[in-house]
Amino acid sequence: MPIDINCDMGESFGRYALGHDEALLPLITSANIACGLHAGDPVVMEQTVRLAREARVAIGAHPGLPDLQGFGRRPLELSPEEAEAFVLYQVGALAAFTQAQGVELTHVKPHGALYNQAAQDRGLAQAIARAVARFSRRLILVGLAGSALVEAGVDEGLPVANEGFPERGYTPAGTLLPRRQPGAIIASPRQAAAQALRLAQEGVAISSSHGTELIPVDTLCVHGDNPNAVEILRAIRAELSAHGLPVAPLGVGPRPGA
Amino acid sequence: MPIDINCDMGESFGRYALGHDEALLPLITSANIACGLHAGDPVVMEQTVRLAREARVAIGAHPGLPDLQGFGRRPLELSPEEAEAFVLYQVGALAAFTQAQGVELTHVKPHGALYNQAAQDRGLAQAIARAVARFSRRLILVGLAGSALVEAGVDEGLPVANEGFPERGYTPAGTLLPRRQPGAIIASPRQAAAQALRLAQEGVAISSSHGTELIPVDTLCVHGDNPNAVEILRAIRAELSAHGLPVAPLGVGPRPGA
Amino acid sequence: MPIDINCDMGESFGRYALGHDEALLPLITSANIACGLHAGDPVVMEQTVRLAREARVAIGAHPGLPDLQGFGRRPLELSPEEAEAFVLYQVGALAAFTQAQGVELTHVKPHGALYNQAAQDRGLAQAIARAVARFSRRLILVGLAGSALVEAGVDEGLPVANEGFPERGYTPAGTLLPRRQPGAIIASPRQAAAQALRLAQEGVAISSSHGTELIPVDTLCVHGDNPNAVEILRAIRAELSAHGLPVAPLGVGPRPGA
Amino acid sequence: MPIDINCDMGESFGRYALGHDEALLPLITSANIACGLHAGDPVVMEQTVRLAREARVAIGAHPGLPDLQGFGRRPLELSPEEAEAFVLYQVGALAAFTQAQGVELTHVKPHGALYNQAAQDRGLAQAIARAVARFSRRLILVGLAGSALVEAGVDEGLPVANEGFPERGYTPAGTLLPRRQPGAIIASPRQAAAQALRLAQEGVAISSSHGTELIPVDTLCVHGDNPNAVEILRAIRAELSAHGLPVAPLGVGPRPGA
Repeated sequence: MPIDINCDMGESFGRYALGHDEALLPLITSANIACGLHAGDPVVMEQTVRLAREARVAIGAHPGLPDLQGFGRRPLELSPEEAEAFVLYQVGALAAFTQAQGVELTHVKPHGALYNQAAQDRGLAQAIARAVARFSRRLILVGLAGSALVEAGVDEGLPVANEGFPERGYTPAGTLLPRRQPGAIIASPRQAAAQALRLAQEGVAISSSHGTELIPVDTLCVHGDNPNAVEILRAIRAELSAHGLPVAPLGVGPRPGA
Repeated sequence: MPIDINCDMGESFGRYALGHDEALLPLITSANIACGLHAGDPVVMEQTVRLAREARVAIGAHPGLPDLQGFGRRPLELSPEEAEAFVLYQVGALAAFTQAQGVELTHVKPHGALYNQAAQDRGLAQAIARAVARFSRRLILVGLAGSALVEAGVDEGLPVANEGFPERGYTPAGTLLPRRQPGAIIASPRQAAAQALRLAQEGVAISSSHGTELIPVDTLCVHGDNPNAVEILRAIRAELSAHGLPVAPLGVGPRPGA
Repeated sequence: MPIDINCDMGESFGRYALGHDEALLPLITSANIACGLHAGDPVVMEQTVRLAREARVAIGAHPGLPDLQGFGRRPLELSPEEAEAFVLYQVGALAAFTQAQGVELTHVKPHGALYNQAAQDRGLAQAIARAVARFSRRLILVGLAGSALVEAGVDEGLPVANEGFPERGYTPAGTLLPRRQPGAIIASPRQAAAQALRLAQEGVAISSSHGTELIPVDTLCVHGDNPNAVEILRAIRAELSAHGLPVAPLGVGPRPGA
Repeated sequence: MPIDINCDMGESFGRYALGHDEALLPLITSANIACGLHAGDPVVMEQTVRLAREARVAIGAHPGLPDLQGFGRRPLELSPEEAEAFVLYQVGALAAFTQAQGVELTHVKPHGALYNQAAQDRGLAQAIARAVARFSRRLILVGLAGSALVEAGVDEGLPVANEGFPERGYTPAGTLLPRRQPGAIIASPRQAAAQALRLAQEGVAISSSHGTELIPVDTLCVHGDNPNAVEILRAIRAELSAHGLPVAPLGVGPRPGA
């Protein structure tokens, strides 16, 4: 199975530029495009879909919490009904641009606090999976490897993708170390590449009282707002290539849960 | 040809309730649903699509300017590129809810200042028509009868609907009298019904130096936020019925421009 | 000591009307005016300060979370630095209108989830108290009777007011019963009046492993969005009057903590 | 009379960084700080007031239209009542931070489309001047040299400052050339310095059918978002210094209209 490399994109807003989408697109295989609530706006979405289409990467919706000032990173308590409606809204808004440009919408990956909350909160995860399935049962739901979000996608009958983070440290339980803890951020391209290889070859280890389980990883996320993102992506691709591991966009080949 | 009766709906926002959608739905044939920028929010959109579906009325997107505080009524200068992207965004967002609920999206009608500006500004009208056509060439574009917006729809090859206003006074040029001028608002149900009949039978008279042209009217708009909207709708339907004029939702039967 | 009766006011936004400020103002002694983030807007603030000034009630700022769609009721995680800046911002914005209209700003009472979170979270409570104190050490900080917010105000050297709720059920710990639990809402004017009297005469009972403490109540909050708010306020005032308990705005007479 | 050099500051928003405030502050004498509607947020305002205070520059409020996505540059029709309330709101919000940090608020300068509209529209200009005067008659109102805004300030009895733009081309009527016209932008530091000197020594020439009038300039605006803003500021200061023209913050020395 080839592995996917994804990046969050289209996070500029009006006069505010963010990220280096054009530099990163040639190095990734899937783009998660912000949908106007935590970041992005209609003009940015139009442009980013165009750039992603030209780069021939898979295009996904990247819905977030309605909190532009907090960039969708501040936990906000939404009811399942609210979460479902917010995801549906954002997926539809982005799908308008892919439809208008004649390209497929491949996947949905929640952003920031919504992603993190849905990794643990079953009710929230189900609400998100329900929204995606109601829009289209062909959309791939991307979540933290082994998380409640991926499980909820499987339960809904959606194709899913387990995501791994080459630049982040993990807890024994297979969750990400909080950003402020030592070891949370892996800044060295060499180390990130080594972790990418491990994730691609072995998956994520999730330990609990029942023992340790290895969850295979379908897609690797690289943070586009990292100042040395280009260097990290090059190191990862070189490492995967050196070990004969092919990369390919989400949606190419069968997915677990499909 | 039957005539349509439409009403703007789904204009509540969070804790803020507006309009009387449930009381009005049995009396109309098409609903224009706000898309979250000038009014409405994802939860309200989900609910309003459900109500409209249950009432078996045609469902349209009602995109507006990004100005909730001004309810989309304060003119805001958007570039054609911005207007196109904003309309596409909102149509897609609403379409997510119709798609999820298994009903058709029938039409698009801009709201407030966007509607009024597009009635006169060709560049803006073309941007809106382009957005609608890029989303789907089957969507009916609704605009002020005889306006630049309807013309732009025809030019794009879209089905269009010319709209008339039973409760508003008209200028000789076929535009609406500004709200503050005497005669701008027709409050009496009896008078509104008489004007509805005239619009349905004769259309709107547009006079210029080239003479007077009569534009047939496809749909009548009744303002749902009017306190006596129910009474006005009943009077209009009784008057149309008494003269043997059938009503039917937009999209039933062929449309000019199609 | 006279007791104060306060109400949240100025919660309309643009086209969206909320509450019955004009009907309630003659029955209360202090108004907490929304500051534009969870509710209210500059035009509404100008008008509400004018109404409150004409009714000669004490005027307070009612800062909330930056979440209009959720009406400031959905918990949102703010850092203490963010909370402090958001409160300072909103107090200043409202103070502009009191200053322009030549009337005093008397108190600050946080709204909704911010109020509830600050009742328990010391770090958040201190951030709010610090913001108020930095603006003016003469402002009275209003919080749930016996809560962390009131304590933080005392620690900052601010005058404080302990608030009681005639229409809400209490837990043995002196916190409000969550809205969905049985007994959480007291709808009967007679019962609300009886509880108001008890709160005014005895205070709020706070039980813990150390025993039960009675916290005297300085101000009673009545929910203006309650459909029978006028009736409840009349019943409360009649009951207090029948027992010889005077009412007076916040800021009249010395306050604990001053 | 010394001349002032001002720059717009505090235009970041949440995760979105904009401008180079720390690099520019040592080179200017007055800072206009965004107030959270077109740019800036409470945390940014707190930080920017701190930076400006440490740099010992005069601090002003920089209120704009409620349009973050358009950065306050898209004309939006506000009624005079709305404009007055929006300016009052923003001045108060910023004043909270200056008051909390123990520094003076010296001036108010509208931003973007609000500034440009108020240069010509007397009703809007009067609404802005009224808002400033109601907040404090000691605040200096900054407007385009010779514009309706400056006149409205004088009529209100406010101290005023006539502003000139070293980096912008002027029409014979003394207004700025629209940004897209040739000659609108002066990019060369040498030319900008030459125009700064001319503005400081001679003022702005305003020609009409009544002849040409020279309006003395009190303050020079340099655009902080210009990539070579530092170089331009250095060139201007060197040029002014070489000709014995002192610079000083707004509020030092008497102002016309005071």
